[in-house]
Amino acid sequence: MSGYGKYFPRSEKMYVEGSRPDIRVPFRKIKLHGENEDLRVYDVSGPYTDPAYEPDLKQGLPAIRADWIAGRGDVEEHASGVDILSNSDKAFQGLRRRPLRAKPGQSVTQMTYAQQGVVTPEMEFVAIREWVEPEFVRAEVAAGRAVIPLNINHPEAEPMVIGRKFRTKINANIGNSALGSSIEEEVDKMQWATLWGADTVMDLSTGADIHDTREWIVRNSPTPIGTVPLYQALKKIGDNADGLCWELYRDTLIEQAEQGIDYFTIHAGVLKKDIPAAKERKLGIVSRGGSIMAKWMVDNGQENFLYTHFREICEIMRAYDITFSLGDGMRPGCIADANDEAQLSELKTLGELTKIAWEYGCQVMIEGPGHVPLDKIKINMDKQLEDCFEAPFYTLGPLVTDCAAGYDHITSAIGGAVIGWYGTSMLCYVTPKEHLGLPNRDDVKEGVIVHKIAAHAADLAKGIPGAMDRDEAMRKARGEFRWVDQFNLTFDPLRAKEYRLASLPPEERDKTDQHYCSMCGEQYCSMRISAEIRKS
Amino acid sequence: MSGYGKYFPRSEKMYVEGSRPDIRVPFRKIKLHGENEDLRVYDVSGPYTDPAYEPDLKQGLPAIRADWIAGRGDVEEHASGVDILSNSDKAFQGLRRRPLRAKPGQSVTQMTYAQQGVVTPEMEFVAIREWVEPEFVRAEVAAGRAVIPLNINHPEAEPMVIGRKFRTKINANIGNSALGSSIEEEVDKMQWATLWGADTVMDLSTGADIHDTREWIVRNSPTPIGTVPLYQALKKIGDNADGLCWELYRDTLIEQAEQGIDYFTIHAGVLKKDIPAAKERKLGIVSRGGSIMAKWMVDNGQENFLYTHFREICEIMRAYDITFSLGDGMRPGCIADANDEAQLSELKTLGELTKIAWEYGCQVMIEGPGHVPLDKIKINMDKQLEDCFEAPFYTLGPLVTDCAAGYDHITSAIGGAVIGWYGTSMLCYVTPKEHLGLPNRDDVKEGVIVHKIAAHAADLAKGIPGAMDRDEAMRKARGEFRWVDQFNLTFDPLRAKEYRLASLPPEERDKTDQHYCSMCGEQYCSMRISAEIRKS
Repeated sequence: MSGYGKYFPRSEKMYVEGSRPDIRVPFRKIKLHGENEDLRVYDVSGPYTDPAYEPDLKQGLPAIRADWIAGRGDVEEHASGVDILSNSDKAFQGLRRRPLRAKPGQSVTQMTYAQQGVVTPEMEFVAIREWVEPEFVRAEVAAGRAVIPLNINHPEAEPMVIGRKFRTKINANIGNSALGSSIEEEVDKMQWATLWGADTVMDLSTGADIHDTREWIVRNSPTPIGTVPLYQALKKIGDNADGLCWELYRDTLIEQAEQGIDYFTIHAGVLKKDIPAAKERKLGIVSRGGSIMAKWMVDNGQENFLYTHFREICEIMRAYDITFSLGDGMRPGCIADANDEAQLSELKTLGELTKIAWEYGCQVMIEGPGHVPLDKIKINMDKQLEDCFEAPFYTLGPLVTDCAAGYDHITSAIGGAVIGWYGTSMLCYVTPKEHLGLPNRDDVKEGVIVHKIAAHAADLAKGIPGAMDRDEAMRKARGEFRWVDQFNLTFDPLRAKEYRLASLPPEERDKTDQHYCSMCGEQYCSMRISAEIRKS
Repeated sequence: MSGYGKYFPRSEKMYVEGSRPDIRVPFRKIKLHGENEDLRVYDVSGPYTDPAYEPDLKQGLPAIRADWIAGRGDVEEHASGVDILSNSDKAFQGLRRRPLRAKPGQSVTQMTYAQQGVVTPEMEFVAIREWVEPEFVRAEVAAGRAVIPLNINHPEAEPMVIGRKFRTKINANIGNSALGSSIEEEVDKMQWATLWGADTVMDLSTGADIHDTREWIVRNSPTPIGTVPLYQALKKIGDNADGLCWELYRDTLIEQAEQGIDYFTIHAGVLKKDIPAAKERKLGIVSRGGSIMAKWMVDNGQENFLYTHFREICEIMRAYDITFSLGDGMRPGCIADANDEAQLSELKTLGELTKIAWEYGCQVMIEGPGHVPLDKIKINMDKQLEDCFEAPFYTLGPLVTDCAAGYDHITSAIGGAVIGWYGTSMLCYVTPKEHLGLPNRDDVKEGVIVHKIAAHAADLAKGIPGAMDRDEAMRKARGEFRWVDQFNLTFDPLRAKEYRLASLPPEERDKTDQHYCSMCGEQYCSMRISAEIRKS
C-alpha cells in the first residue's frame, strides 16, 4: 500500500514542523473539490501511510524520539535484566538496542519535566497535534490532568496526549489467547487498528510467544502500547496462580519496561477489604486481572502484593516513564452492579494510589467500567474526577445494557460517547464479538470506527478545538451535493461510496454530480428545494 | 415460517387475556434452561409468529378491534369519498370493508374516551402490554402525555401506546421512491421490520402505486402505520408543487383516513415568519415536507395552508381517530443548525397547534430532530416538554455528528438513547444507508435492532417496568455459562451464536457448556474465577 491506499481516497500524509526540524507532526489531509480548503485531520496511522516511507517490519519503525531522549542526558544504557535476545525463530530480527533506563534516582517522566517547567519536544509535538499551545500541554501534564504515555524504550512512537481537555482518544485491544492467532496476525491487527484510528493499542496476549509477539508489535507501532503485565507473569508459571508473587511480577514489569511498553494496567486497587462486597454482587468480578488478584488474596490470606509493593512499582515506572493505568478490578460486569460498593470503594483506593504515584513523578490514568446504565454514568464520572483528583479516566464502554451481545460495540459507543462528553479521556473499544469471542480483522475495524465516532461526538459536545471543522466540511459538501467529498469526509469512505452506489440504478453509478440521493429521489430532495428557497 | 422460526430459537408466542376474551395481548416467551423462569418480552410481530395462524397476505390480518369499535356505537359506514376499489391489477384483493367514520359531530378518539373516564379495551390492552394499570394508561392519554395511534379503519392493528412513562418505542420507515422497489418488497419490509421489533411503521412511498402499496401494507400490518400525506398529494399533481392546494390535500387526508392510516405527519408549523431564519441557517430546510411547504409559501406568497386550515384537519383527524404527528419541517440537518431560531420558533408553533388539536379531542405527538450534538439534546427535550405541554416527542435520532455517513444508525442510536432517557417517547430509526440511499432488507434489520437497543438503554435508565428483567436474565445466564440462553436473550440470537462459533475451534463448536469464552480462554476466565471466589 502506498499512502492511504484505497481506504482513504484523496487523503495525503502531511507534516507540520515544530520549533526544530525533527518535530514533524503527522496529519491526514483530505483533499476536497472546488474552492474548498483541504481538511486536516488527526492521524495515528504512522509512517506506513507516508508514500516516501518504505516499511520493513523486520527492522521496525524509525526511532524518531531517540535524540530527544538522549539529549536530556538523564538516561543510561544497561544490560538487560532478562534474556530478550531470544534465539527463537520467532524473535524480532531488527535492530536490537540496549535498553535505556533513568540514571539512578532520576525521574524521566513527562510529568516530572512538566513540573520542572520544561516544555519537551514531546509536549510541543502533541500541542501541534491538538491545535493548542505547548504551555497548555505542559500545565495539564504537570497537574496530572493529562498523560503522555511514552516509554523511553519506545522511541518509535509518535507522541500523543490523553486528558479530558484534549481530543478524546480510543484504544484497541489486540492479542492472542490460548485459542488462537499468530504473531503476524497480531502485528497486522495493530497496523490495521491504527490505520482506522486507534490512538493506542493494548496487547493483551495470553497465549503462546508473549514476549516475541510484543516485541514485534512495539518495534512496529507508531502509537503507544499498553499491556497487563499480570497475564505474562501468570503465563511464566504455567497459568497456575498459586505461584504468583511480587518477585515474579517485578521481573515481568522490568522485562516489558525494557521492551518499551508505554502503559501498564496494574490492578493495585483490588483489596482484601473489598472482597466481601465483591462476593455479594450479582456478577462478581469480571476483570480478568481483578479476579486473579482476588483469588490470590483469598487463597493466600494476604493483601494484594501490587498494593503492598506499590512504591517499588513507582520506582520502576518513573525510571522508564511508563504510565500507570490503574486497573478497575472491581468494574461492574452487569447493569445491576453499576456504581456498587465494591466499585466505588476501589475507586477511592485508586485515588490514594494516584497521589502516591504522583509523589514519584509518575503519570497516571484510571481505568473505568464496564456495564453502567445511562442514568448512572455521570455519577461515576463525577466521583472519578473527585476521588482521583482529575487524573484522566480511561473506560471500557460503558455498555448501557447487558443484553445486546453481538451489538456490544454499539452499547459501548452509546455509553462511551456520553462518558466522553462528561469527561472521560480515552475509550477502550469494544468489538461486535464482545462477550462472545476474539475479534477478527473486520471486528477490529468496526470497533475502532464506532468508537472514533463516539469520541468525536464527545469532542463536539465538549467543544474540543478542531472537532467542528470536520462536521462543517461535511455539512458544506452535503449542501453542495459534492458526493465524493462526502464519502471522503466520513470515517469509512469506501463503505459510504458502496452504500450510495448500491441504491443507484446502474446507469447513474458513474456520475457523481447528482443533485439528490435515492432516499427521496430528485423531486423530493429537500436539499435541492432548500437551495431554490435560498435563491428566492 | 412457523412461529418465530429460525430467527428466535426457543421463543414462543403467548397471550395474556384481559377482562374479556377478545383482549388477547401478545408476548414473546423466551424459554430458558434449568430452573430459570421463562422471560416474557414485548412483542410486535403480530399473528405471523403464532404457529396457529395461517397467514394470507391477500386477505389481510384479522380485524381484532372490529367489535370494540362497533360496540361504542359512535361510528357509521359511509361511501368512500375516493375510488379505492381500484381495478388495477395491483389493487389489494382481500376483504373490502366500507370505510367507517364518526357519526356527525362526534369525536371517536382514545383521548376523548379517556377524558370521559372510559377505559377502552384498547387502553386495557396496552396496560397489559406495558405491565401497568389500565387507569394509569387512561390518565396519561387523557392528559395528552401519551397517544394510542389507532385509526378506526385499521382494526387489524394491535393497540400500543406512545408516551414517555411507557416503554420507548421505535418506528421503521419503509416506502418506495421514484428510483425503485415494488409493493411486494414494501409489504415484506413491513413484516421484516416488525419481526425485529419496529413498534410502528411509516410508509413514505413517493414512487409508483402509492395507494395500492399502502393498502397492502395497512391490511397486513399488526402495528400502527404512519404516512406523510403531502407526498401523495404532490404525486397526484405530477410532483409539481405549483398545483398544491388545500382541497387536494384534504382529499388525500380523507383517502388515507379511510384506508386506516393511524398517524399523519403534518407540517403545519412551518410558517412564513420563520423562512428568513431558515434561509440564514447553514443547511437550510432538510425535511422533505418542510421544504415543499416553504417553497410553496415563497412561490405563492401565502401562509402555509396546513396552518390556516388546521381546525378543518382536526375535524377529519377526530372522525377517524388519526393521531397528529406534527412535523418538524425546520429540524436541523447539521450540527451547526441545532437548536437554532428556525427550529425553536417552529417548536412553539407546534405547541400552539397541540392545544388546538386537543380542543377537538385529537391525539398529538411532536416530531423532533435531526442533527444535534450531545450537549444540546437536553435543552431541546426540555423545551419540547414545556412548549408542547408534554405531548409525546418523536425524534429522528438525533444524530450526534454530521460526518459518519455509512454509520449513521450508530450516531442516531447514541443520540436516540440519550434523548429517550431524557423523555422522548418514540425514536424513528435510521439505517446505515441514511444520507446515502434507500435501505434494503439487511439495513432495515440493522436499523431496527440498533434503535431497539437504544430504546432499551433509555428504558433501563428511566426505570420502565419490566425493562430490567431482560438484563437480569442475561446477567444470570452469563454468570452460569448458559450460552444458548445468552444467545436467545439478545436482540439477534443467530448473530450472537454465529459470532461465538466463529471463534471456537471446530471440535468445540458442538458443545454449549464451555465454562469460558475465546476472548480470554479458560485459564483467564474471570467468570470462572469469580465463581471460585464466591465459593471460598
